[in-house]
Amino acid sequence: MIDFPPAIQNLIHSLKELPGIGPRSAERITLYLLEETKGTKQKLVQSINEIGAKIKPCSRCGFYTEETLCSICLDHSRDKQCFCLVIHPIDVIKIERTGAFRGVYHVLGKKISPLDGHVPEDLPLSPLLQRIDEEKPREIILAFGADAEAEATALYIGQILKKRAIRVSVLAMGLPAGSGLEYADSVTLSYALSGRREL
Amino acid sequence: MIDFPPAIQNLIHSLKELPGIGPRSAERITLYLLEETKGTKQKLVQSINEIGAKIKPCSRCGFYTEETLCSICLDHSRDKQCFCLVIHPIDVIKIERTGAFRGVYHVLGKKISPLDGHVPEDLPLSPLLQRIDEEKPREIILAFGADAEAEATALYIGQILKKRAIRVSVLAMGLPAGSGLEYADSVTLSYALSGRREL
Repeated sequence: MIDFPPAIQNLIHSLKELPGIGPRSAERITLYLLEETKGTKQKLVQSINEIGAKIKPCSRCGFYTEETLCSICLDHSRDKQCFCLVIHPIDVIKIERTGAFRGVYHVLGKKISPLDGHVPEDLPLSPLLQRIDEEKPREIILAFGADAEAEATALYIGQILKKRAIRVSVLAMGLPAGSGLEYADSVTLSYALSGRREL
Repeated sequence: MIDFPPAIQNLIHSLKELPGIGPRSAERITLYLLEETKGTKQKLVQSINEIGAKIKPCSRCGFYTEETLCSICLDHSRDKQCFCLVIHPIDVIKIERTGAFRGVYHVLGKKISPLDGHVPEDLPLSPLLQRIDEEKPREIILAFGADAEAEATALYIGQILKKRAIRVSVLAMGLPAGSGLEYADSVTLSYALSGRREL
């Protein structure tokens, strides 16, 4: 039984390492790239090389940028006194897509995660605290998500920030939009109950 | 609303052109490549460059190879008098994986497809006919699949080959292995009936 030549097998193998790409997808993409003549291969190679060469963290907030400061930190129309603290750079995009936040961000980079060996002392807080001392924000929103590790991280950072007399808030928890009661788990439902608001 | 820096958007866009990769997968793979530090980016770039530089069609059968002849054409244990005619190079791998064929292949490259503007006269038959004259195969199996275009291609090529007094066969049609009658469409079932064999 004959298999593909080594160069083809290598590409299938490399593609399989990507998230969400299984053996069949890897083979399909490889065969597509083998047969295409529109320059997709070259464009792909160039794009991969460019993210490696051009993208770096914003020196102020940690979001992705090609310059020293990201486009959010450079935007004069943003409220620089309201920080949104997130764990990953992608979280910035998620919040931006809501269109509901006009402040600035700070990317923490990691959360408390005992299973990955990240204890509270490992959190890279000194850049944040230094930025707070310099920029004196009015409010900090902890936008960490609702899993146990994110909540532990929010609790730990919340305590530190409150000592500095800053208003600290966390994202609301409750029913996801568009979903009925029958799909809500009991923890979510209890949060929705305790966080109820008067009409 | 701020989006990713251009280099990141470019990679997402390039990935979306690949088959089976939608906007969310493209974003997920891009973010994975942004954060990875194990050399996945470099390996991927190298593999894509290599298939472009190294892979070419076998000068005899048209399957993928890095040399002049592919590993099947170079294999002395294969039956060189039995050709399996396929449409795409990937079909070779599909048949090889069955382990049920010990002959050699010939990749046609295209099938009759009026919608794509491929009329019978467009089929690249002269390399095949020249190879037949030189190697004088005993049998040619037309392994084209069971759609209308593949059947038209088989009919057309079959007529030409039979004039040369070569035994020509097509793949059997019938029930797929492991499937019950309740899932078979009526065309498949009528083929299975007419192709029935005595026990």
